Amino acid sequence: MRFRGILRILGLLICLFSATLIPPGIVALIYEDGGGVAFLLSFIVSIVVGFVVWYPNRNERSDLKVRDGFLLTVLFWTVLGSVGILPLWFTAEVPLSITDAAFESFSGLTTTGATILTGIEHLPHSILFYRQQLQWLGGMGIIVLAVAILPMLGIGGMQLYRAEIPGPLKDAKMTPRIADTAKHLWYIYVALTLVCAVAYKLAGMGWFDAIGHAFSTIAVGGFSTYDASMGYFDSSTINTICVVFLILSSMNFAVHYAAITGRSLWGYFKDPEVRGFVFIQAVLIIIVFMTVLVHKVFDNTELAFNQAMFQAVSISTTAGFATTDFASWPLFLPILLIFASFIGGCASSTAGGLKVVRVLLLFRQGVRELNRLVHPQGMYSVKLGKRIVPPRVVEAVWGFFAAYALVFVVIMLGLLATGLDDITAFSATAACLNNLGPGLGEVAANYAGIPDAAKWLLVIAMLFGRLEVFTILVLLTPTFWRS
Amino acid sequence: MRFRGILRILGLLICLFSATLIPPGIVALIYEDGGGVAFLLSFIVSIVVGFVVWYPNRNERSDLKVRDGFLLTVLFWTVLGSVGILPLWFTAEVPLSITDAAFESFSGLTTTGATILTGIEHLPHSILFYRQQLQWLGGMGIIVLAVAILPMLGIGGMQLYRAEIPGPLKDAKMTPRIADTAKHLWYIYVALTLVCAVAYKLAGMGWFDAIGHAFSTIAVGGFSTYDASMGYFDSSTINTICVVFLILSSMNFAVHYAAITGRSLWGYFKDPEVRGFVFIQAVLIIIVFMTVLVHKVFDNTELAFNQAMFQAVSISTTAGFATTDFASWPLFLPILLIFASFIGGCASSTAGGLKVVRVLLLFRQGVRELNRLVHPQGMYSVKLGKRIVPPRVVEAVWGFFAAYALVFVVIMLGLLATGLDDITAFSATAACLNNLGPGLGEVAANYAGIPDAAKWLLVIAMLFGRLEVFTILVLLTPTFWRS
Ligand SMILES: [K+]
Ligand SMILES: [K+]
Repeated sequence: MRFRGILRILGLLICLFSATLIPPGIVALIYEDGGGVAFLLSFIVSIVVGFVVWYPNRNERSDLKVRDGFLLTVLFWTVLGSVGILPLWFTAEVPLSITDAAFESFSGLTTTGATILTGIEHLPHSILFYRQQLQWLGGMGIIVLAVAILPMLGIGGMQLYRAEIPGPLKDAKMTPRIADTAKHLWYIYVALTLVCAVAYKLAGMGWFDAIGHAFSTIAVGGFSTYDASMGYFDSSTINTICVVFLILSSMNFAVHYAAITGRSLWGYFKDPEVRGFVFIQAVLIIIVFMTVLVHKVFDNTELAFNQAMFQAVSISTTAGFATTDFASWPLFLPILLIFASFIGGCASSTAGGLKVVRVLLLFRQGVRELNRLVHPQGMYSVKLGKRIVPPRVVEAVWGFFAAYALVFVVIMLGLLATGLDDITAFSATAACLNNLGPGLGEVAANYAGIPDAAKWLLVIAMLFGRLEVFTILVLLTPTFWRS
Repeated sequence: MRFRGILRILGLLICLFSATLIPPGIVALIYEDGGGVAFLLSFIVSIVVGFVVWYPNRNERSDLKVRDGFLLTVLFWTVLGSVGILPLWFTAEVPLSITDAAFESFSGLTTTGATILTGIEHLPHSILFYRQQLQWLGGMGIIVLAVAILPMLGIGGMQLYRAEIPGPLKDAKMTPRIADTAKHLWYIYVALTLVCAVAYKLAGMGWFDAIGHAFSTIAVGGFSTYDASMGYFDSSTINTICVVFLILSSMNFAVHYAAITGRSLWGYFKDPEVRGFVFIQAVLIIIVFMTVLVHKVFDNTELAFNQAMFQAVSISTTAGFATTDFASWPLFLPILLIFASFIGGCASSTAGGLKVVRVLLLFRQGVRELNRLVHPQGMYSVKLGKRIVPPRVVEAVWGFFAAYALVFVVIMLGLLATGLDDITAFSATAACLNNLGPGLGEVAANYAGIPDAAKWLLVIAMLFGRLEVFTILVLLTPTFWRS
């Protein structure tokens, strides 16, 4: 392990993160909301910490190897999540316990969007801006993670995407390739955010809300500056804008990149994952719409369609924005949408869940098993589009699926041990592991009412979900540390 | 497809089944409970139906092929389950709707043990005997299914057991081998039942209860002749006897056979599945015992241990006997035990669930993935004991796991659509798919209160669970019917 090389990068990242505390500080100055001191203090602490970590290791320029990548990835999220606690903790207007501040910080950075705050609209503007920006930064991190790091580490079958990454990212030298890859996709990410913010503004939001919600929309994060979330605006147009950008942000960013560089929309139609994703979204919207219509949840058909579409997309892409109390929708709807969040968005997007491509692979493998039972001598391969998927990738996806299920069961039993009821424990685990946000039962609106131990368990669930389970599990094996 | 050959065997099986209506008829005569007419009528109807199916096809002696095995297996369970409705429906003392009678019959034959009956102890003795016997017969069917048919069909990785089956069962000729294999294992099954009945009698049950409960214990079925189930006897000795025989019945019967023919207990220690099963049981008993002790659920330690052991084993082996209302036990205990029922017992036993060997394989595959992440160039194989498991078997197990999950999700959403609450729908699906029996919420005691549509969905769940999902799924593919 090249610990010093890892520390060097980590130190730089902390310094870089401290710079992101400047915009909320400026917001504090603009709105004179009294939050400025907290951000100044946090900035100083984090830049000092970053410097102290970086300085002694500044000359460690040896390239990191794949194995260092696991440790760096986990440290990146845990350390930045911890540094992210500072402004929340230092702001006197938000008297948060360390547990609550940590929950909020990790929920933001992992783009989970679960909150322990209530009366959000009365918080200082700087803190509101900071929360939204935290999700946006988390989304940037996920893009690097999903597009550059996970394929190289080979987590959960993501080696499948090695060839598709823009730029030559096939050998073991990490840093320069990642920077190059990330840059291309961040352009797209930033462009989507700008267009989304303008659209929100034109639809009636103020600039502050428009930018803040664009941050959490493109990150598929789900934080809002209001308790009522998107429901505050009570606007079908805003809902529709949100749906469009959630769907775009839940698609593979490498596919966006290919479409832009090739100046053609054909890539979207050709990509089996995007096709699968759009199909799933369409089916969900239809089912939810028909059910709320039959049960007369809304007064008129247009409203019913808009709400059905919004909640179906918001929950199933793991954004977690709300316009209405969908947890009390009739029959199977709440559970259906929670189940859908297990599928989530496409790989290499900012969405959570197992990812569409993996579910597609599992489905294809199931079909292959059926064919094999009928024709035991037949040769069947698992295909994705026209590509044959190597058995090793399929095995990695199965391993991922099983590990996800195991982590789910352990966290849910842990939550029950803290005294939560069954449906709260189930939905909170799903909502945090899938980086969705809102759950059902006690955690339908926010996570304020659950015990501290449950909050920490859920922070772990968020990290497991965001880091695709295996990145963390690997660190828990003796093999990893041995040689 | 050799339809006529299938019909010939089916006709014979129905005739054979009609013979099993004679013992309950005799019970009716002994106890003069008025149930005799119903059984006589059912006997006549079923023997006539069997004869009509068999007679035109009596000369079809061509050997069945593997593919015919799928159809025959599904028809065997659905047709016998349907014929099994007759006595329940004809008995005037038990005014059951056709739905309720079907639920009870399929629940019996699949050894699920979920019941829609209340006031069971007031039913005619003949009906009580019939229900217990139905589970016992179901258990006999499962042994043939698990030991002879599933390995040949290659369902869910069960081809792994092809070599281990007593007798040379490696080519495609079905019928004579099955009969031979079944005979050996049925001796063990009958012997276990006799010893269990005597043990129950010595512990204080009357002969009627002793035989009836031995039937449902060895079948890991869970039907009882009392509403309070095993709790009626309020005896630690009876609970312990039940636990011992449930554990024996949940072990691979081929391992029992090897131990008996080899006159050595060594086979039990050597078998990785049995070891895994015993380990899981021990861990569950300890966790449940510690938790009920800490929460002072029972007055004294001995009672707490006996109850903890009984419920842990009864639920996790998918028997589903009750001594106490475990659904109201504190914290995670009810959900933990329901989760444990997903693992269930060993393959080639009468227990339900995914089966220990499959969970073991998934776990080994997960560990392999972790090793591969650390050493991408390393060669790792999935082992079971000292045997390397072929990739094809591992793939089949993954397919099984995914199909099981898919069926679970679809049935649970279907139940929610009938209006059940979340926890009832979740636990009922688990309880029926795992062939466990009792659930939580509205179905903790019995299934009387749920809508008819839900009952039918659960009958389908029982069949999917018992027939290991793929046997039914294969019949739904066009490929199966094409050539
Ligand atoms: K989210
Ligand atoms: K059972």
